[in-house]
Amino acid sequence: MSKPFVAVLMGSDSDLPVLQSTMDVLNSLGIPFEAKITSAHRTPDVTHAYVKDADARGCAAFICAAGLAAHLAGTVAGLTLKPVIGIPLDSGPLQGMDALLSTVQMPGGIPVATVAVGKPGAKNAGYLAAQILALSDPDLAARIRKDREANATAVIQKDAKLQATL
Amino acid sequence: MSKPFVAVLMGSDSDLPVLQSTMDVLNSLGIPFEAKITSAHRTPDVTHAYVKDADARGCAAFICAAGLAAHLAGTVAGLTLKPVIGIPLDSGPLQGMDALLSTVQMPGGIPVATVAVGKPGAKNAGYLAAQILALSDPDLAARIRKDREANATAVIQKDAKLQATL
Amino acid sequence: MSKPFVAVLMGSDSDLPVLQSTMDVLNSLGIPFEAKITSAHRTPDVTHAYVKDADARGCAAFICAAGLAAHLAGTVAGLTLKPVIGIPLDSGPLQGMDALLSTVQMPGGIPVATVAVGKPGAKNAGYLAAQILALSDPDLAARIRKDREANATAVIQKDAKLQATL
Amino acid sequence: MSKPFVAVLMGSDSDLPVLQSTMDVLNSLGIPFEAKITSAHRTPDVTHAYVKDADARGCAAFICAAGLAAHLAGTVAGLTLKPVIGIPLDSGPLQGMDALLSTVQMPGGIPVATVAVGKPGAKNAGYLAAQILALSDPDLAARIRKDREANATAVIQKDAKLQATL
Amino acid sequence: MSKPFVAVLMGSDSDLPVLQSTMDVLNSLGIPFEAKITSAHRTPDVTHAYVKDADARGCAAFICAAGLAAHLAGTVAGLTLKPVIGIPLDSGPLQGMDALLSTVQMPGGIPVATVAVGKPGAKNAGYLAAQILALSDPDLAARIRKDREANATAVIQKDAKLQATL
Amino acid sequence: MSKPFVAVLMGSDSDLPVLQSTMDVLNSLGIPFEAKITSAHRTPDVTHAYVKDADARGCAAFICAAGLAAHLAGTVAGLTLKPVIGIPLDSGPLQGMDALLSTVQMPGGIPVATVAVGKPGAKNAGYLAAQILALSDPDLAARIRKDREANATAVIQKDAKLQATL
Amino acid sequence: MSKPFVAVLMGSDSDLPVLQSTMDVLNSLGIPFEAKITSAHRTPDVTHAYVKDADARGCAAFICAAGLAAHLAGTVAGLTLKPVIGIPLDSGPLQGMDALLSTVQMPGGIPVATVAVGKPGAKNAGYLAAQILALSDPDLAARIRKDREANATAVIQKDAKLQATL
Amino acid sequence: MSKPFVAVLMGSDSDLPVLQSTMDVLNSLGIPFEAKITSAHRTPDVTHAYVKDADARGCAAFICAAGLAAHLAGTVAGLTLKPVIGIPLDSGPLQGMDALLSTVQMPGGIPVATVAVGKPGAKNAGYLAAQILALSDPDLAARIRKDREANATAVIQKDAKLQATL
Repeated sequence: MSKPFVAVLMGSDSDLPVLQSTMDVLNSLGIPFEAKITSAHRTPDVTHAYVKDADARGCAAFICAAGLAAHLAGTVAGLTLKPVIGIPLDSGPLQGMDALLSTVQMPGGIPVATVAVGKPGAKNAGYLAAQILALSDPDLAARIRKDREANATAVIQKDAKLQATL
Repeated sequence: MSKPFVAVLMGSDSDLPVLQSTMDVLNSLGIPFEAKITSAHRTPDVTHAYVKDADARGCAAFICAAGLAAHLAGTVAGLTLKPVIGIPLDSGPLQGMDALLSTVQMPGGIPVATVAVGKPGAKNAGYLAAQILALSDPDLAARIRKDREANATAVIQKDAKLQATL
Repeated sequence: MSKPFVAVLMGSDSDLPVLQSTMDVLNSLGIPFEAKITSAHRTPDVTHAYVKDADARGCAAFICAAGLAAHLAGTVAGLTLKPVIGIPLDSGPLQGMDALLSTVQMPGGIPVATVAVGKPGAKNAGYLAAQILALSDPDLAARIRKDREANATAVIQKDAKLQATL
Repeated sequence: MSKPFVAVLMGSDSDLPVLQSTMDVLNSLGIPFEAKITSAHRTPDVTHAYVKDADARGCAAFICAAGLAAHLAGTVAGLTLKPVIGIPLDSGPLQGMDALLSTVQMPGGIPVATVAVGKPGAKNAGYLAAQILALSDPDLAARIRKDREANATAVIQKDAKLQATL
Repeated sequence: MSKPFVAVLMGSDSDLPVLQSTMDVLNSLGIPFEAKITSAHRTPDVTHAYVKDADARGCAAFICAAGLAAHLAGTVAGLTLKPVIGIPLDSGPLQGMDALLSTVQMPGGIPVATVAVGKPGAKNAGYLAAQILALSDPDLAARIRKDREANATAVIQKDAKLQATL
Repeated sequence: MSKPFVAVLMGSDSDLPVLQSTMDVLNSLGIPFEAKITSAHRTPDVTHAYVKDADARGCAAFICAAGLAAHLAGTVAGLTLKPVIGIPLDSGPLQGMDALLSTVQMPGGIPVATVAVGKPGAKNAGYLAAQILALSDPDLAARIRKDREANATAVIQKDAKLQATL
Repeated sequence: MSKPFVAVLMGSDSDLPVLQSTMDVLNSLGIPFEAKITSAHRTPDVTHAYVKDADARGCAAFICAAGLAAHLAGTVAGLTLKPVIGIPLDSGPLQGMDALLSTVQMPGGIPVATVAVGKPGAKNAGYLAAQILALSDPDLAARIRKDREANATAVIQKDAKLQATL
Repeated sequence: MSKPFVAVLMGSDSDLPVLQSTMDVLNSLGIPFEAKITSAHRTPDVTHAYVKDADARGCAAFICAAGLAAHLAGTVAGLTLKPVIGIPLDSGPLQGMDALLSTVQMPGGIPVATVAVGKPGAKNAGYLAAQILALSDPDLAARIRKDREANATAVIQKDAKLQATL
């Protein structure tokens, strides 16, 4: 069986800069992924076909980013039984509160695992997908552990630097 | 050609009491309609098939009601070029703010004509559909005018009653 | 009978840049329209006279844009039985939440078809008016279909470009 | 010249119970007033005619109460140069935040003196109108002073009662 | 008796640019005013003394501007029976929603006539004070009427300019 | 020197039930306190006199509870240099968001130590005052520690009960 | 190796009724789970010890429910690399908006998979955990598929019942 | 016994510029403090160890600043019985509303003394800590009094400057 992969979906190419954080995390942890621009509303058939196909080809988790009335994650969640992670983007004047509520407030039976609005969420979508895949991949689990330890060390080093200046 | 009709869609039978206001307005104005329970997320294929079919059979406007992360109106709007009217419902603890933003904040190219949260919106969805159909139906236009005059008269009569008590 | 047209109303000339998106959509779809600066509060009589006159001359839909306590769409909706589309503008520190609630929360009997805050809403107001007029204009319906297909193609091409860079 | 009076306007008879607080304050301070049910949207011509007429007959201040997309105060403010006081009502699921923003966020040039949402606002609308009229009515000013002193005494007595129980 | 005047209070000199709009309106309508920097919290005794003194010297209305937990207007309203107008300022990250609620949600018995957040509110505070004073000053009433007509004319001229470009 | 005490201030006797939680905590920890009903707006002079007097008599911390545009804590904070704890109450339709922002968003120089809206905040105001007094009262510190251990034990016992039912 | 299980954590026994929905879903899908009452703040050491122990014993996912400043999910996420699912509860006057933001807005590196506020979220936490475990348990995947099909059938049957009444 | 000190904790070195205001206040009032970068989620063990150690070494108050789902103050409050002051930071698109609710809405038994979002709060955290320490340090109390008088004088001087320009 081929290695499971993650699908990173976004509604518009203007979302690419934020999603680069997601892809950087996936790359740094050695997780194979596909990125795809497709819209829940403008290309519903493409979205439908891609989700069904990726699902069949071994996609283990879908990461979906959208702003405004962010329906992409929910739409994908209605088409697959794989975990779907939603990143709400702050792409309009309401600062992502619209995207957050549109993504997280899913009705019973169709979960979307929602992360923070914008960049921290984009990073965490990558980490969450990694944690999910690591449940059956001890090597990945070890890489995640190493990454978190590195993050902790970075905080400790910043504090050391601060102590030196006081 | 058969008479155009309105499709009234809701994601759950628990939405029926609020949508009764919509159907009462359509009935009182003599507008044919179909009511259907179908979910953007739980029955996406049924929703897809119904919208395509209703569209082909002469549906002139879709009215979609949903609460929480209300995707039904947006999903339908991505499947048809007919006007889609969205009613945000206040079915959870966030009091409909989630449904309002999920319904109204549609991205460019896929409009949803959004009305007020809950009951006043349910009534107005019926009136808005009626106004749209009335553009090519002078008899319906006359009935709407009569209805609005009756509403004005009701306000005036309530005021008269108030004046009598002062 | 003369061809139906759309009236595009705004409360201030500072709203023109956002409304250019509306007029671009109407122009690209070949829909005749009138644009007018008039205020619900500063020039109520001009607004009243214009709406009554435009209505009589065959205006098929009113598009009204306003910020802050956005009353223009609601005021127009009280003066006509034609569909009224409201665009909430984010022109103050509350980022359009004030305009959104002032536009969408209309009481029963006087609907305003509300679209998204700001630019995406301005575009969608044009599309929504087009969808309404297309109900009795098959040529316009065909042009809308072509436009939506072009939008879908644009998404697909952006994705193709993304795939080429991965 | 006849004594100046206050006009108390409401959009619906369902607003009467809250506005009773306004009328109680006006009555207790001996201020003549007229109460009227009229809607900015359902009976715009009645509203227009009443405001113009009341203004000419010596109305010194208009108090307008409305819920949802509360346009009544703003509409009246566009028709008169007398002070207009707006009471936002919490009549829907958004708890009056819609009415508050629709009432207070008026554009430059057309002020609405907005008070608190619901019952405390209804009371304060009466007091604010009284303060305005008292500027040229020393007797009324004295009655307001006495009323405020009574309110202070009530607080002091409640505290005395509390002290007795501790 | 000396001519009544308006007191314009602000908590900080950083509020001066926004309050310039208020003073411009008062100046243009020929209304005498005093401007004063004083804080409800940092200089409570100065505030108390000034309000009592201004009140005794014939101040007819207090205009108070503040941001964040904006208590200035409410504090002044507790010290005088003259009308108090509150301008909520958007001086922090919460964009004035904090100042709006702190200003408008006054408890029963102590009204603050609240206007819009920031610049439009600053302008309207001036107009509202003018309308209040005009009740006993027909010349001022005439100047306000002329000003509003000029505002209406400005809208009409902007529209004429727009029509010329279409 | 006499033992330091806590002053518990509330704007209205209707706030007593919520503040009972505060007084229960203070009583259970053996902290002397005074309770007083006084309003920032209705009895500003009483408030001023009480704060100055209590401060001089050895009040170590003020706890102030208010709803709506909650100015009591801020007003007290401007009159004393002792720590002031603010409890925002959810006494109106905006559910305490107004009181929270009016209490917490104090400008630089005049802090209010704000706790949660309503009942949990009322409890925590008592605990916070206790923690402050315990800095120079080791016996009180020991009582607080015991109380927290009892709270932890209660959680553990509830869990034990849950485990027994699974 | 023993079968992986899910840990269901809650801060208080008052959260049990909402979490029953989570446990019902887990039970109906045949997923082993442990339920535990432990608080991030009142019993931090118990929480720490439990998470470390459960993690070592094969816990595959943690579900954490909390209201107000809901820190439980974030705290657990800082102690494990297993996926953590957060359910925001609407247990105070702010209706769960506090719990939602406290749960979902996690900083980069420490994801919490957040679901809807209250009951729909409690149900979806169970489904999301199931989807995660199903990635390496084809039998569970089949049971989830059957459950979703049953949900779809239920919607279709409700619609059939509606059609029968029209 | 050594002099009590204040611990200033922040989750990231990007928070240093805002916390400089806190440290400036502490420095200007002659209060010893330690600053430390440590994260509730990334370095929970470092945080735990530091709080326990600082507590034992005589830390009298903890000041904790964090943005987004700001858990640092609450986490520290669960580990100590000393007063904990929380500064919510506006470090993401939701402008600090997330950090405010995550900090202030603590459950009963674990108080966090919350100050304003961002810079004014950072300043006030320093003043609040000073007020707490001053309860048993009359010299510090005198310095705080002098500082507040200086602040009052600054307001009065700004007003004098304004009066000179009018």
